[in-house]
Amino acid sequence: MKSINESHNPALLSWVESANVEDCDFPLQNLPACRFSAAGRQAVGLGIGDFVFDASGYFETHQELGLSGITIESALSCGERAEFQRLLGTDTDSETREEIENRFLYPMNEVEYFLPFDIRDYTDFYCSIYHATNVGRIFRPDNPLLPNYRYVPIGYHGRASSIVITGTDVIRPKGQNRSDTENPPVFIPSRALDYEMEVGFYVGRGNDLGTTIPISEAEDHILGLSLVNDWSARDVQGWEAQPLGPFLGKNFATTVAPFVVSMDALAPFRVPAFDRGDEPAPLEYLSDPDNEKAGGIDLNLEVLIQTEKMREGGVDPHLLSRSNLKDLYWTVAQMLTHHASNGCNLQTGDLIASGTVSGKEDDQRACLLEITKRGKEPVELPNGEIRRFLEDGDEIIMRGFCEREGYRRIGFGECRGKILPSI
Amino acid sequence: MKSINESHNPALLSWVESANVEDCDFPLQNLPACRFSAAGRQAVGLGIGDFVFDASGYFETHQELGLSGITIESALSCGERAEFQRLLGTDTDSETREEIENRFLYPMNEVEYFLPFDIRDYTDFYCSIYHATNVGRIFRPDNPLLPNYRYVPIGYHGRASSIVITGTDVIRPKGQNRSDTENPPVFIPSRALDYEMEVGFYVGRGNDLGTTIPISEAEDHILGLSLVNDWSARDVQGWEAQPLGPFLGKNFATTVAPFVVSMDALAPFRVPAFDRGDEPAPLEYLSDPDNEKAGGIDLNLEVLIQTEKMREGGVDPHLLSRSNLKDLYWTVAQMLTHHASNGCNLQTGDLIASGTVSGKEDDQRACLLEITKRGKEPVELPNGEIRRFLEDGDEIIMRGFCEREGYRRIGFGECRGKILPSI
Repeated sequence: MKSINESHNPALLSWVESANVEDCDFPLQNLPACRFSAAGRQAVGLGIGDFVFDASGYFETHQELGLSGITIESALSCGERAEFQRLLGTDTDSETREEIENRFLYPMNEVEYFLPFDIRDYTDFYCSIYHATNVGRIFRPDNPLLPNYRYVPIGYHGRASSIVITGTDVIRPKGQNRSDTENPPVFIPSRALDYEMEVGFYVGRGNDLGTTIPISEAEDHILGLSLVNDWSARDVQGWEAQPLGPFLGKNFATTVAPFVVSMDALAPFRVPAFDRGDEPAPLEYLSDPDNEKAGGIDLNLEVLIQTEKMREGGVDPHLLSRSNLKDLYWTVAQMLTHHASNGCNLQTGDLIASGTVSGKEDDQRACLLEITKRGKEPVELPNGEIRRFLEDGDEIIMRGFCEREGYRRIGFGECRGKILPSI
Repeated sequence: MKSINESHNPALLSWVESANVEDCDFPLQNLPACRFSAAGRQAVGLGIGDFVFDASGYFETHQELGLSGITIESALSCGERAEFQRLLGTDTDSETREEIENRFLYPMNEVEYFLPFDIRDYTDFYCSIYHATNVGRIFRPDNPLLPNYRYVPIGYHGRASSIVITGTDVIRPKGQNRSDTENPPVFIPSRALDYEMEVGFYVGRGNDLGTTIPISEAEDHILGLSLVNDWSARDVQGWEAQPLGPFLGKNFATTVAPFVVSMDALAPFRVPAFDRGDEPAPLEYLSDPDNEKAGGIDLNLEVLIQTEKMREGGVDPHLLSRSNLKDLYWTVAQMLTHHASNGCNLQTGDLIASGTVSGKEDDQRACLLEITKRGKEPVELPNGEIRRFLEDGDEIIMRGFCEREGYRRIGFGECRGKILPSI
């Protein structure tokens, strides 16, 4: 875990004034990295206030600073971040400031974002015990949680090719539906389209095939965190998933947010790992005193929905859930160490997601399957519409932020996606 | 499906004499493609007799032929193959022949092979109904085949990063073992390491996210076939796989053969799809008259084992199973069309494997889990050793070949891997 130091000092202010506004996602203490399009080329950028700072462009122009050829990996490392804070902080000389303002600052809402990494492999875990229990209860009321859950960080491989950046529309998938169990399945547009509010992390330094990553070193392999929406077609998934797990019910699209928040920026918001009480302790390869003490991350998550009618009627997005990453049963370090524990090689840019981050309370259920109990208890929206699952035109908006007294709030930006009808 | 034409004429002979030997894997009618190391660089090669023809090198030198910058994709397409057959056939002038012999032909056993493609996504199906039934019977004796099996080509996403080329040693993975159900799991080297004899195909032209691939066009997206060994740690898999499928039980290694046999070379060996008799017909999106008539591939598969003691004692590898790809319940076209049926985008070089190719008979069971009924009925080897699962030092050798009266036999080369002890 990164320690808290001067770079987290809440008194540090930026000359980019929107970065100093109290509720801002991107103060000087955050500086999340992204890939975006600037001046006709793909560049590494940093979120600051309402702007993206074109780090690639600036350091190409100033080769004397020794940071030209900056990558999103290097942009997330501690050393570089100190230099960024210096440039964007109020102590910068007026010449530098003017140059950046005129040539290297782009309004956030006007740029095009790309996937932060060329993601080779994408893994999705199932680390919320509340989600696993809620979902398990729907299918196995008497025995919601399987016996392996408290020992194994359950995960599966997802599809890397269909990961898309925020704002990409999602076409409702077709698939086999066997709701009518008396008859053969039919191939129709999904009738149970859902989102899952997840948090993913990107792998930095990988490991060679056949080697493992001790849990005490796990976080050295993690670059940062980002919001993920693991879209799910529940009807397709329910019919296809035995015995080998989800496939077409998931791989039609996964949306990621553009900004990656560095582990360094998260340092002030570290909290103990899940309190297991009398439940079995993790096996030795997943145990570590530092992880137990501060392996968790106090990251607030919100999911909102805006239907087509709401948009037309000027009705604001409606909050569906509020949950928190600190409620995960397994930490990010445990996910990573477990993943490589059989010698599986992780590579730079791999995306590893948490699974749906639900909490204990009813308003902390982070997908519609849980909220509506598979459609049995529909949600009523402010304009009177009801939802069992997602309808065409619905947009899902995910947000995340960390706050703690004595520190600047930092945010994750948004992860958005709208459902289009089947073709 | 490619039609049979002059390029399949068994009378065509090569001036590479080892290619004309009767049982040769690589006659002029085959010319499978690979990536290998030639003259210090990575090149696209073609198997011919006991040699690899350095196609990259030859066409770079002869730019007038218009094939410089050859890729493994183009090497598998019909047009290029006619030119290769001309160059390597007996009608070639002696100057060409001499040049190739001296500069562009490498003994097959002396070259280093690489993965044929930069595999982005790897998918593994479960298309043998015999394998599914045999495995199902071990876990659910009364209900071996799940109700979705006859409707859904069951598949899951595998790990792309840990795919290795033939000859790469496989380190025995560690993992959670819960054989003692009275006590918590222990983290130990796998005690139930297994192979799975599979056949994979590589995707050529992909599809955009949100679009599908009609079954009538599916084979236009397939470049060719290759042998695959889906190594499996059954103890790890059994404990971890509910509810999301296999993960660490599989992703420690998957071995592929170096050579990809083109769909064109396979044309003479096409056979009807699985005869379903009274069982339900495939849903409409998976139905096609051409696929029904000739969607199958008559490809013989053999698995052999050679233990360390056998090697030391000079005992030949022992045959564990003989099976055939034509016995798959789903065809390669059905796998591909199903995969993209929800709009999932496939990309050039994606590997899509069949799942264990087992047949109806006892000697057609293509993994140890089936052969030994999860260790209950061990195999006795010629030197008296017995095997429930793989031991350290065991090497698994997979072979494949097609034969049909009136045509030249074509082979797939070998897919080999040896187990090393856990670290």
